[in-house]
Amino acid sequence: MTTAYEQTLQTFKDKMKEIKSYEEALAVLYWDMRTGAPRKGLNTRSEAIGVLSGESFKLATSQELGELLTRLEEKDANDQLSDLDRRLVAETRKDYDRSVKIPPKLYQEYVVLTSQSESAWEEAKEKGNYEEFEPYLDKIITYTNQFIDLWGVKATRYDTLLDQYEPGMTVAELDRVFGGLRDKLVPLASAIAASPHQPNTGFLRQQYPKEAQKSFSLFILEQMGFDFQAGRLDESVHPFATGLNTGDVRITTRYLTDDVTSALFGTIHEGGHALYEQNLMEELTGTTLATGTSMGIHESQSRFWENVIGRSRPFWERYYGDLRSRFPGQFDEVPVEDFYRATNVVQPSLIRIEADELTYNLHIIIRYEIEKLIFNEGVKAKDLPAIWNEKYREYLGVVPSNNGDGVLQDVHWSGGAFGYFPSYSLGNMYAAQIADTLERELPNFWQLVSEGNLIPIKQWLTERVYKWGKARTPSEIIVGTTGKPLDPSHLVTYLERKYKDIYKL
Amino acid sequence: MTTAYEQTLQTFKDKMKEIKSYEEALAVLYWDMRTGAPRKGLNTRSEAIGVLSGESFKLATSQELGELLTRLEEKDANDQLSDLDRRLVAETRKDYDRSVKIPPKLYQEYVVLTSQSESAWEEAKEKGNYEEFEPYLDKIITYTNQFIDLWGVKATRYDTLLDQYEPGMTVAELDRVFGGLRDKLVPLASAIAASPHQPNTGFLRQQYPKEAQKSFSLFILEQMGFDFQAGRLDESVHPFATGLNTGDVRITTRYLTDDVTSALFGTIHEGGHALYEQNLMEELTGTTLATGTSMGIHESQSRFWENVIGRSRPFWERYYGDLRSRFPGQFDEVPVEDFYRATNVVQPSLIRIEADELTYNLHIIIRYEIEKLIFNEGVKAKDLPAIWNEKYREYLGVVPSNNGDGVLQDVHWSGGAFGYFPSYSLGNMYAAQIADTLERELPNFWQLVSEGNLIPIKQWLTERVYKWGKARTPSEIIVGTTGKPLDPSHLVTYLERKYKDIYKL
Repeated sequence: MTTAYEQTLQTFKDKMKEIKSYEEALAVLYWDMRTGAPRKGLNTRSEAIGVLSGESFKLATSQELGELLTRLEEKDANDQLSDLDRRLVAETRKDYDRSVKIPPKLYQEYVVLTSQSESAWEEAKEKGNYEEFEPYLDKIITYTNQFIDLWGVKATRYDTLLDQYEPGMTVAELDRVFGGLRDKLVPLASAIAASPHQPNTGFLRQQYPKEAQKSFSLFILEQMGFDFQAGRLDESVHPFATGLNTGDVRITTRYLTDDVTSALFGTIHEGGHALYEQNLMEELTGTTLATGTSMGIHESQSRFWENVIGRSRPFWERYYGDLRSRFPGQFDEVPVEDFYRATNVVQPSLIRIEADELTYNLHIIIRYEIEKLIFNEGVKAKDLPAIWNEKYREYLGVVPSNNGDGVLQDVHWSGGAFGYFPSYSLGNMYAAQIADTLERELPNFWQLVSEGNLIPIKQWLTERVYKWGKARTPSEIIVGTTGKPLDPSHLVTYLERKYKDIYKL
Repeated sequence: MTTAYEQTLQTFKDKMKEIKSYEEALAVLYWDMRTGAPRKGLNTRSEAIGVLSGESFKLATSQELGELLTRLEEKDANDQLSDLDRRLVAETRKDYDRSVKIPPKLYQEYVVLTSQSESAWEEAKEKGNYEEFEPYLDKIITYTNQFIDLWGVKATRYDTLLDQYEPGMTVAELDRVFGGLRDKLVPLASAIAASPHQPNTGFLRQQYPKEAQKSFSLFILEQMGFDFQAGRLDESVHPFATGLNTGDVRITTRYLTDDVTSALFGTIHEGGHALYEQNLMEELTGTTLATGTSMGIHESQSRFWENVIGRSRPFWERYYGDLRSRFPGQFDEVPVEDFYRATNVVQPSLIRIEADELTYNLHIIIRYEIEKLIFNEGVKAKDLPAIWNEKYREYLGVVPSNNGDGVLQDVHWSGGAFGYFPSYSLGNMYAAQIADTLERELPNFWQLVSEGNLIPIKQWLTERVYKWGKARTPSEIIVGTTGKPLDPSHLVTYLERKYKDIYKL
């Protein structure tokens, strides 16, 4: 009996490793395409990606894998599994069922549709012409509704979509936390806009040589404890992080010569993602648990390092001198307090990806509310621009003059990624809640930051968050780390404390 | 009838594309490992490479592919094939038979052996301790002899090995051409060594900033017609070229700050390989014919650009000013003639990869003669150091003081690559023969070089060599380009003309 069970487990793990190998190869191919693969090779490259993706999907949905799972789920076998292996089986089952429930033909149609749709979106956005994109969006919504039916409707239809990116997250929970957040942030943003104490940002508009920016980015990553033996920093138009395996986690940034903050905070942000993936425990290697537990928890780490640490006064008390020395003369007349305030300007605006850490959440809440309308209330694609503009007026006090700066601004919907947006604000809330615990459990937390002693912070996060990967659920991570479920009041308190000080409210 | 045939052909081509996709993915993974993949990820990366290589080998040896080949080889179908498709079928058959003739278990043992052997070689070379490596070499020779029996013995046992790298090449042919070469080059090298007119090379030992070297490398590649939309230049410890597809051909170089010629000629060499792969005709895309026709012809292109063009007087008459301007003050006192002579020093030495373009051929002939002794005369691994040292004394007048600088110097044998070495000198001979034709058919050939007008030369080579890829055999290429079979007298004439001038003989 035992031998048969052990054999089944080994065969199952070998299958997992095979799937992981394809995922690693594909991740290298994508990384390469985004960091400088020659333009003329991209068509052939796409074919190679198609072949490998197809094979990987075949492995992940094979009857053999289904049978292995069934055998490992039988009580006799399941009782013998280690906690980690039981978790691996359960997670694999979830992915397996999700994949096999979609008929291959339907999925194939959908892949073609979203690929066309992304091109259509790009063109429509450029022209600000929503009508061009609307029929694609309409079809994507129809397909997504079919998927919801095939996967099974949870508490609401939109709950089914949320679960893809944030396992266990619900509309009921998001309504609660986003409601609390919105009610506090809208008046706070208004008060900030009305403050006479606006930071001076003129000195941020100089020319900053790329090499000096790069040197500072590498220096800060090193300070954060980024392991350059297990990762690298490159350049790409849209910065990203990708963990090929725990020993190879790659991030990118983008150097703008007229904006020193773009690459700097972009690097710290992606560096936060990278610390997560570099510090997964070794037992997860070669399994599908070797990754972040959810988009929201992943984003909490990028935002913790970028905003809570990187945009804090103690951080710049320590590192401003290093920045200054890399740009001789350019910051001589700028006191550290002015620099700190300039990197924390709050300004309601139209574009999510350019938003500050406060109003950013309002951009997300708008998208969340619209996605709920689409899937739970049956709102149609044609109605979205009007809804979008009205919500921007209400929450942010600004209205786009064309749809390119409005409803067309994000790539997500063109690729069918409904349910993804909430992750970004969940990340902010998780980050603030974790920071609150950190302040209490590492009593000298801010002193460590002001001394540039960031490694103990990384180690604390490794023990609580990073090492577990997908072996714990998002809710297990947040309760295990902070002692209680997600509580939006921490983000509110954090933002109020920070911005009432900066804007002297 | 026609429909069935067309379907078979299409299925066959789809299989080919699938195999090509795996090859492209593997080439990206290898390129990435050699240009900066983080150290700690390499173990997991090796597993991914193992999985993909295994799958690729399965595809290339599948029964299905064998059956498709058989059907396309039947007279009815074969008569309907285009010339190119007929060639593709024939080439695929050759690879297929070669692969399926080795029992998977035997091949697996051999893969493990060579991987252990390469590590053993590295250590043995470091210590100069041949006895450590000898048992591995012994086993590799035994396995290789088994492969020869399985593949089938051609005119001699060693002929079977040669055919892997230079299809159609024979021992009889190599004896003829290498014999002619050796008899002329040994006395020429002696006369050069005795000449009182030795070039001054002292000025080559300065410090050359890496960025300036890189800028010059990129400039020269551009001058050669390297397409940066279809390729890139990176850095690696051992320079190489890899064609992922015709639109993505990557080369690397190595910048030594105390030697300006290393990266320079290395870049031109790999650039020559790249021009070949970038200029394959479009009809070959997605087939296994989309690569160089043999190692020798490939090497002829790297050596043509590096030696015939890059180490010529007209080349430096045109480009010396560009080099000077990148290293202000460093070459002010050095006339172009001195620089030209310094880059063409001939000096019999122990190490192949550091040899000049004349004595290099003697290093190759020694290896060729030893490989023939092993496979055609049954000479044993234990006898090799003595034979090696005796041949170095005879042909080059130098004897290694330890085996690390002698019989252990090359990686090739540790990986079982017997039959590969002759390609290097074949490359030199092909290059000289092609240059001879070029001089006659482009009457202003050297004027073009001295004007920095290299594109017509690239175009001429594209028409004669590059575009055909593997759709023509090496011998078809050389006869088609120069009007006659391989003739070693062109290399002899070229070397005599060049070095009698430089050394005033």
